[in-house]
Amino acid sequence: MSRIDGRTPEELRPVTIQRGWSKHAEGSVLVSFGDTKVLCTASVTEGVPRWRKGSGEGWVTAEYAMLPRSTNTRGDRESVRGKIGGRTHEISRLIGRSLRAVIDYKALGENTVVLDCDVLQADGGTRTAAITGAYVALADAVTWMHGRKLVRAKAQPLSGTVSAVSVGIIDGIPMLDLCYEEDVRAETDMNVVCTGDGRFVEVQGTAEGQPFDRKELNNLLDLAVAGCAELDALQRAALAELEQIAKG
Amino acid sequence: MSRIDGRTPEELRPVTIQRGWSKHAEGSVLVSFGDTKVLCTASVTEGVPRWRKGSGEGWVTAEYAMLPRSTNTRGDRESVRGKIGGRTHEISRLIGRSLRAVIDYKALGENTVVLDCDVLQADGGTRTAAITGAYVALADAVTWMHGRKLVRAKAQPLSGTVSAVSVGIIDGIPMLDLCYEEDVRAETDMNVVCTGDGRFVEVQGTAEGQPFDRKELNNLLDLAVAGCAELDALQRAALAELEQIAKG
Amino acid sequence: MSRIDGRTPEELRPVTIQRGWSKHAEGSVLVSFGDTKVLCTASVTEGVPRWRKGSGEGWVTAEYAMLPRSTNTRGDRESVRGKIGGRTHEISRLIGRSLRAVIDYKALGENTVVLDCDVLQADGGTRTAAITGAYVALADAVTWMHGRKLVRAKAQPLSGTVSAVSVGIIDGIPMLDLCYEEDVRAETDMNVVCTGDGRFVEVQGTAEGQPFDRKELNNLLDLAVAGCAELDALQRAALAELEQIAKG
Amino acid sequence: MSRIDGRTPEELRPVTIQRGWSKHAEGSVLVSFGDTKVLCTASVTEGVPRWRKGSGEGWVTAEYAMLPRSTNTRGDRESVRGKIGGRTHEISRLIGRSLRAVIDYKALGENTVVLDCDVLQADGGTRTAAITGAYVALADAVTWMHGRKLVRAKAQPLSGTVSAVSVGIIDGIPMLDLCYEEDVRAETDMNVVCTGDGRFVEVQGTAEGQPFDRKELNNLLDLAVAGCAELDALQRAALAELEQIAKG
Amino acid sequence: MSRIDGRTPEELRPVTIQRGWSKHAEGSVLVSFGDTKVLCTASVTEGVPRWRKGSGEGWVTAEYAMLPRSTNTRGDRESVRGKIGGRTHEISRLIGRSLRAVIDYKALGENTVVLDCDVLQADGGTRTAAITGAYVALADAVTWMHGRKLVRAKAQPLSGTVSAVSVGIIDGIPMLDLCYEEDVRAETDMNVVCTGDGRFVEVQGTAEGQPFDRKELNNLLDLAVAGCAELDALQRAALAELEQIAKG
Amino acid sequence: MSRIDGRTPEELRPVTIQRGWSKHAEGSVLVSFGDTKVLCTASVTEGVPRWRKGSGEGWVTAEYAMLPRSTNTRGDRESVRGKIGGRTHEISRLIGRSLRAVIDYKALGENTVVLDCDVLQADGGTRTAAITGAYVALADAVTWMHGRKLVRAKAQPLSGTVSAVSVGIIDGIPMLDLCYEEDVRAETDMNVVCTGDGRFVEVQGTAEGQPFDRKELNNLLDLAVAGCAELDALQRAALAELEQIAKG
Repeated sequence: MSRIDGRTPEELRPVTIQRGWSKHAEGSVLVSFGDTKVLCTASVTEGVPRWRKGSGEGWVTAEYAMLPRSTNTRGDRESVRGKIGGRTHEISRLIGRSLRAVIDYKALGENTVVLDCDVLQADGGTRTAAITGAYVALADAVTWMHGRKLVRAKAQPLSGTVSAVSVGIIDGIPMLDLCYEEDVRAETDMNVVCTGDGRFVEVQGTAEGQPFDRKELNNLLDLAVAGCAELDALQRAALAELEQIAKG
Repeated sequence: MSRIDGRTPEELRPVTIQRGWSKHAEGSVLVSFGDTKVLCTASVTEGVPRWRKGSGEGWVTAEYAMLPRSTNTRGDRESVRGKIGGRTHEISRLIGRSLRAVIDYKALGENTVVLDCDVLQADGGTRTAAITGAYVALADAVTWMHGRKLVRAKAQPLSGTVSAVSVGIIDGIPMLDLCYEEDVRAETDMNVVCTGDGRFVEVQGTAEGQPFDRKELNNLLDLAVAGCAELDALQRAALAELEQIAKG
Repeated sequence: MSRIDGRTPEELRPVTIQRGWSKHAEGSVLVSFGDTKVLCTASVTEGVPRWRKGSGEGWVTAEYAMLPRSTNTRGDRESVRGKIGGRTHEISRLIGRSLRAVIDYKALGENTVVLDCDVLQADGGTRTAAITGAYVALADAVTWMHGRKLVRAKAQPLSGTVSAVSVGIIDGIPMLDLCYEEDVRAETDMNVVCTGDGRFVEVQGTAEGQPFDRKELNNLLDLAVAGCAELDALQRAALAELEQIAKG
Repeated sequence: MSRIDGRTPEELRPVTIQRGWSKHAEGSVLVSFGDTKVLCTASVTEGVPRWRKGSGEGWVTAEYAMLPRSTNTRGDRESVRGKIGGRTHEISRLIGRSLRAVIDYKALGENTVVLDCDVLQADGGTRTAAITGAYVALADAVTWMHGRKLVRAKAQPLSGTVSAVSVGIIDGIPMLDLCYEEDVRAETDMNVVCTGDGRFVEVQGTAEGQPFDRKELNNLLDLAVAGCAELDALQRAALAELEQIAKG
Repeated sequence: MSRIDGRTPEELRPVTIQRGWSKHAEGSVLVSFGDTKVLCTASVTEGVPRWRKGSGEGWVTAEYAMLPRSTNTRGDRESVRGKIGGRTHEISRLIGRSLRAVIDYKALGENTVVLDCDVLQADGGTRTAAITGAYVALADAVTWMHGRKLVRAKAQPLSGTVSAVSVGIIDGIPMLDLCYEEDVRAETDMNVVCTGDGRFVEVQGTAEGQPFDRKELNNLLDLAVAGCAELDALQRAALAELEQIAKG
Repeated sequence: MSRIDGRTPEELRPVTIQRGWSKHAEGSVLVSFGDTKVLCTASVTEGVPRWRKGSGEGWVTAEYAMLPRSTNTRGDRESVRGKIGGRTHEISRLIGRSLRAVIDYKALGENTVVLDCDVLQADGGTRTAAITGAYVALADAVTWMHGRKLVRAKAQPLSGTVSAVSVGIIDGIPMLDLCYEEDVRAETDMNVVCTGDGRFVEVQGTAEGQPFDRKELNNLLDLAVAGCAELDALQRAALAELEQIAKG
């Protein structure tokens, strides 16, 4: 049985990771998971928020947003409505936590990296694409910091790698990396964030229709772990390419 | 090895569920998980939000908030700051989804129930106490609706029961129902929402320090499922008590 | 002629003052005037707002709010609406002024006490119950400050006691401590804040229907002064009880 | 003993009431109490707020604001801060209640009048000047409505007249109509709103320093009632002048 | 062919510039262009915004607002709506830029002048009246600063003079200083800000209906330059009058 | 004398207009003026805002925003700050007016088109690139509407074409299409919006340093008119390409 777009249940959509997209940011990636496109920029500033000053430790945070017409129907701008919605808040926090899971604050020193993940086009899985792309932007920003000697020569601010993928159950079948149409139909929807060694940073499973049992949960986790391993390889390949054409 | 408060790792804190706390609300519960106290009220209104009108289906939503001095250090009021924080948004959404998982919208008819979960005193696990208490308030509100004939005589708006508990790993040991001090020290923190038949509505696990592996995840899920079964029994016992002293 | 709840015109509702309600706050009181229940917490912080620094004087302020379903019909949360309403502002300011009337800023030293008065259940007279309860919470906080040596040993930050009650004219008869149903029907509504020695801190009288004349005003003041004297006795009795079970 | 500006304790500042100040508004008055100048406009619209529709009754409301440099030190604009302060809320509500006290809603019919009171220059007593001026603007608006036949020919939407004045105790002496310097020094500050027949619409007394006793309260009320009688005469004189040069 | 109010196309409305309107502000002007009346106050504070500290240079900024009933139909207050509209923002920025064009920041020293331009009555051309009046208020504030020795004795913070006027094409005819009725009908609307020597600070032309060609643009500029020259003379005359009766 | 990037004073930067960028929007263009990249989407909805209902006329509006790291230094998100800044407001309004200048509302019928212009990378001239790109997106949206028969078969909602360019004076030399570094150094900065037949829709000139005289203004207008003519040709070429790959 094949999926809407012809994939098998355990197949990712075509994934591209384009580094050096922006001339200004210290790290920048245009990541696509099929038709989902997210621009991830990493902005480095010396110093940390007030509550962390003098600790010798750095900070990493993230902000997620969707362009108003990244979706099929135009959404109001949160800036115009004057407040950030719950979904935006939730995803921004998830991205931040996921990246902080692989940061060694001491090695980062008192520097701050802000990851901005702006969805240019949405077709399901925007938060998992954002995490996957933001990791690469962050890695480029760390390289940039080494070049500027903002971190000590032997410091390794990144203690691991991180990627994320969605999984869900549709018509009883567990599937990897849902596109929007699948996401809408899924009975259970799960987002899983893994490190490169296959451990979990975040597991967020939600029953959209019927509650799910332990066996279904296990099947979903198996799929997600395999998907993250593939994404990890793609991230490594992207980072192995010739030097990005970024901020001189 | 015993815990800060003398419990075994698989032991819940003392849980109380006091129905009929408020004279105004259609359902109201003061729930406590140890020193965590949450006032849950269910407010029924006829009609549904605009986007649902004419569907014949009802709606259930939730709002969570903490009193400014429910915590050890006073927090600013979100009303004074003029906006709702990300954590509040996230928990309100979680509570709403959890309760909607056991609602039959058709049976509810075009009525709306709002669950307000206000934390009067916080000591860890406020979101899980809120879900557990809100379910009971919701059940009382459904009974009230039957009494007022707002739902059809044979309609069963509640398709199941729901409760929630936190679990976490502290010094390598999986533990049930963390209090605040434990929560702060936990390497991994997970909130699990189950139906009375032991299936999952939500699984949200977060690595606070080291990523966690599959075995740790499984241990935590075992603990949580057992904890929710206990909470389910406590909810049933509370609902079996003589008629609440609520809104005549 | 008796009142809705059987009281005589000059009779208070049953008043309870439960100290040490919260484990976190430096002073905390659950006060009830009949079915009106207000949780009052006093939060102490060292230091004062910027505009008062270096003066050697302390500061006391208050915030009042109602839980959304403290009333018969659910009200929107002010945090969700993104702004504080006029009534909330007005009452917060009144509570703050009333308590500052019995504070010796010099004796308090450069410390700040915030009184949070959250209405858990409303049945008229929430602002007067809040002032009456907040005074007791404030007194406990001052005791706590003495224990922590935040104020000098012989300093008396409290220069007096303060309590408050509502009065109103219903069907031509002046009545004390109106419940909600009476408040709605009152032609004139007055809130009076007195010190323990029977002097006035605030007098706020409003003609809801017909303007009132001097004689009616005098009758209302007589009732209010007597009511505050009773409340003063109840406050003293509550404070005379064995040590509260608060923040160790 | 004379006052800062040479007045006796029971003397008003020079009061002017200039009708027809604005070419657009249905009623408009520039009122001055000494150096305090408030522009009061009455805006009539057919129809009433949603909650009042179909009642056959009208509505009157008020908004008060200060220009940023109406005071000695420039204040931030509330529009720039994005929210209205507590004092502004409180005074807007007071003005609205005071004018509604002399409105016969039935006679007004389903029309709304908004009174805008903008302080152009402040020197104490802005709220009392605003009420006194707004009454005259409202009276002109009612005349305008009669001219447009928005109210029935014999309907009398105004059931009385209303004016307001401040009183206070300075160095133990009760004084009428405080200017800013006096207001700052007053031990007790009271705003009194009276109808033309000498009854009370609002009495708001506040102890700024020491609490006040019954005798002081009585002295202040005597002064205020006499002051309002003078203001009532000035309002009548202003309204007796030749037709205002307003909105044709 | 004459205009609505009998003027010739190249004629200004009657312009008045009343200095010393406010007793508090360091400079204050009530300016009128026909029925358009704007109160302009200049507020001086020592020091500059954070981003300019230590530069030795001053700062000048402006805020524009309309009273709610300055227009024919009452507008909502921006403070009540909780945000500033685009038009208000745009005009505030225009006024600020226009006045900064004639400021020598070094000569001003680390002082800030805020120009508040509040429209008391609107009949077209409020932004140009505001700029023209604000310049005079600013000049008085500079004089005041000299008196207080806030600027060095020989410093000339004002490097020139500035005024502004609107022009537009109505029924094919270029006209100067449009009133509201003309503004509504104009096919092209242009605001021009000139220095006293006839050069341009701002030129903002907008096609309201048909696009305009180069010849029309030139005609409008000719009219505007002549109008600004007249306004410049009126500003000089106002400033030549006997000392303003402002802030002692 | 050559410019920073080697251009002659009257030379545009390389301009690209990529149609059909988004799969969701009815028209979408990624426009670049050198390193400035703006994503312009046109969203069509049936119906018009409330104030225009029943008029038989359509509406076109625009919103402009910058991604936080589109600039050299990261800017705060306006959604996070909770309000839109003055510059954003001003540019959104300019874009909307510019496009409405070539819209025949009657021919558009009661449909609304919203143009979202999101700056992905900024290097000066973002507003002029946005207008130039948005026109092409609008033209595609109109074609789409014809395909869906949302407008009558012979209706021509577009009455002309529109493009925009910046010009400025740097070191006394008028230059076309300033990049960021030039913009910062310009003494005078002007944005000009022209129709395809060389007439003006908007002329906005600002003296950043010295005021400018008539001759300089004329030189700038000459440059801008020539620049817009080139942009007009590029727009026509883009629209002449094979059908965009947009929303089926």
